[in-house]
Amino acid sequence: MKKGHQVTMKEIAKKLGVSVSTVSRAMKDSPELHPDTKKRIVDMAKSMNYQYNLLAQSLRISRSKVLGVIVPELTSHFFSSNISGIQDTAYKRGYNIMICQSNESFDQEKANIRTLVSSQVDGLLISLSRETKTYEHLQDIFDRGIPFIMFDRVTEEIPVSKITVDDAHGAYLVVKHLLDQGCRKIAYFSGPEDLYISKKRKEGYLEALAEYGLSEKESKVYFTDLTPEMNRQVTIEMLESGDLPDAIFAMIDPVAVDVMIVLKEKGIKIPEQIALAGFTNNPTSAVVEPSLTTVSQPGYEMGQLAANHLLDQLEEIVPDDPQSFVLLTTLVPRNSSKKKS
Amino acid sequence: MKKGHQVTMKEIAKKLGVSVSTVSRAMKDSPELHPDTKKRIVDMAKSMNYQYNLLAQSLRISRSKVLGVIVPELTSHFFSSNISGIQDTAYKRGYNIMICQSNESFDQEKANIRTLVSSQVDGLLISLSRETKTYEHLQDIFDRGIPFIMFDRVTEEIPVSKITVDDAHGAYLVVKHLLDQGCRKIAYFSGPEDLYISKKRKEGYLEALAEYGLSEKESKVYFTDLTPEMNRQVTIEMLESGDLPDAIFAMIDPVAVDVMIVLKEKGIKIPEQIALAGFTNNPTSAVVEPSLTTVSQPGYEMGQLAANHLLDQLEEIVPDDPQSFVLLTTLVPRNSSKKKS
Repeated sequence: MKKGHQVTMKEIAKKLGVSVSTVSRAMKDSPELHPDTKKRIVDMAKSMNYQYNLLAQSLRISRSKVLGVIVPELTSHFFSSNISGIQDTAYKRGYNIMICQSNESFDQEKANIRTLVSSQVDGLLISLSRETKTYEHLQDIFDRGIPFIMFDRVTEEIPVSKITVDDAHGAYLVVKHLLDQGCRKIAYFSGPEDLYISKKRKEGYLEALAEYGLSEKESKVYFTDLTPEMNRQVTIEMLESGDLPDAIFAMIDPVAVDVMIVLKEKGIKIPEQIALAGFTNNPTSAVVEPSLTTVSQPGYEMGQLAANHLLDQLEEIVPDDPQSFVLLTTLVPRNSSKKKS
Repeated sequence: MKKGHQVTMKEIAKKLGVSVSTVSRAMKDSPELHPDTKKRIVDMAKSMNYQYNLLAQSLRISRSKVLGVIVPELTSHFFSSNISGIQDTAYKRGYNIMICQSNESFDQEKANIRTLVSSQVDGLLISLSRETKTYEHLQDIFDRGIPFIMFDRVTEEIPVSKITVDDAHGAYLVVKHLLDQGCRKIAYFSGPEDLYISKKRKEGYLEALAEYGLSEKESKVYFTDLTPEMNRQVTIEMLESGDLPDAIFAMIDPVAVDVMIVLKEKGIKIPEQIALAGFTNNPTSAVVEPSLTTVSQPGYEMGQLAANHLLDQLEEIVPDDPQSFVLLTTLVPRNSSKKKS
């Protein structure tokens, strides 16, 4: 073993042919584990000069009763709903929360993790930034035995619990609704191509089209960086091309609202000429005119579930084996897509 | 001196007839102070058995490079703009921020302060909860020499720097605009009566009325707890009373939007029958129909100023004498009040 290398739980697990969470439980002296197994793991850890006990001990002794939360941005209604759900749940269970936002920046996300970890939070709830494509920073805290889970923007690379919403199914629901209204030439206004939700919602979009006998050839995807300026520009370019769809599905409500503003400026009737739908169910979507058809994401409930699950793990009510929770979305039909009464 | 009593800087200042910030500077060994003054204060502090140096020393030695921020709620566009301004500024200057929300609860606010202080943040930026009516928790951290400033929701009771927006002037501007449009019977939809901004905005409302020769008798204030349910109910009761105004000024945009929905449901034309205006310039206000006349608050700039000022104090670029900054608001006239072209 090279000098200065810090032994990870993963390496111990590999040597013994057990799972990482079994090693983790042995380190935490969990009563669920057979004493022989526990001894075998602890002995191996010692022989490998693994440095966990000290941190684990201090975590167990001096619980701060604080959870750390990292979200990409706070101005988003969805993430602030997540936080409300996390906070209400944590508070009921005697915990406070400290929040950091990554501003969609990978570097800021790493800095946030350092900050919250040195504040000795008992655990972390993390939603990844748009820029995060590598995961050493998460692997590092995982290896150090710092409890955390991920929500909404997650990665499969790290074996911790994850809570997501069913993006593909939500997109399927809303595009199927547009098809049910008689639309056949439906454009998808997507965020950046490599974004997880861009892809997932496209899956649902294509699935609904396929169900109505429309192939991928008959789909049409416009990309935007999600800024009001680009949303506007892409809409204008689409209109100027003369190749008009009979419906637009926008990846998130704010894009749909920006599209709506341009269509109205150009005198295009919604939904008669172009039907419109979004995704998120922001408060704004109910008050624009026409009111916006969208998909409701259970942001508050996601926060509640995330906090309860992490606290259940911390308090050893449930084992800390990684679990995946997928929350369902619901269609919210409104006037922007109502072609049939 | 009674046993167990912790001596405060205020008491030392009183004994010596100097200001609290002078004592604070002596404790921090500031080069701005004359050595004789410094010695006199330090001697007095010692004789009174004042316990500051230890904490101050440790703060100075182990700077965490983290600022703590406490806001009443994160779902508010205004506070999330504040936070963006604080974070961008802090990040540029090499600091990270940790955020807690009080959920408008006094107890939660106290818990947030405890949490952030035990995380050893270098300083705090605090916006008070709606419930906060006493200030021992702030006096306590002030006496312990923990650097902090207040923004938006502030109190005059604690001698630290404060950053606010000119609420009264903003309300004056928008009500004067309604008067300029020919409205003479203007109702004010106010939040809870004892809320600072309810009062300040009422001041501006009455000032504008007075300028047009309308006395307080000709004003009409409706109170709501700011929930959508009560905003709706108050509007319906006003309509059913038959005593209709020709304009409504709502204390915040979300109230104006709720009022707008009811007026439209009842077939009342905006602005022809009732003109409408809000305050805050939320993103929603630009996309409702008719677009909402409102007052723009510089939330992001407030955050920038707050963070820069606190960091200037921490880094001793400016003395930590309390200062008051008042940011100006601007009228954003839109269609909901446009009676004249």
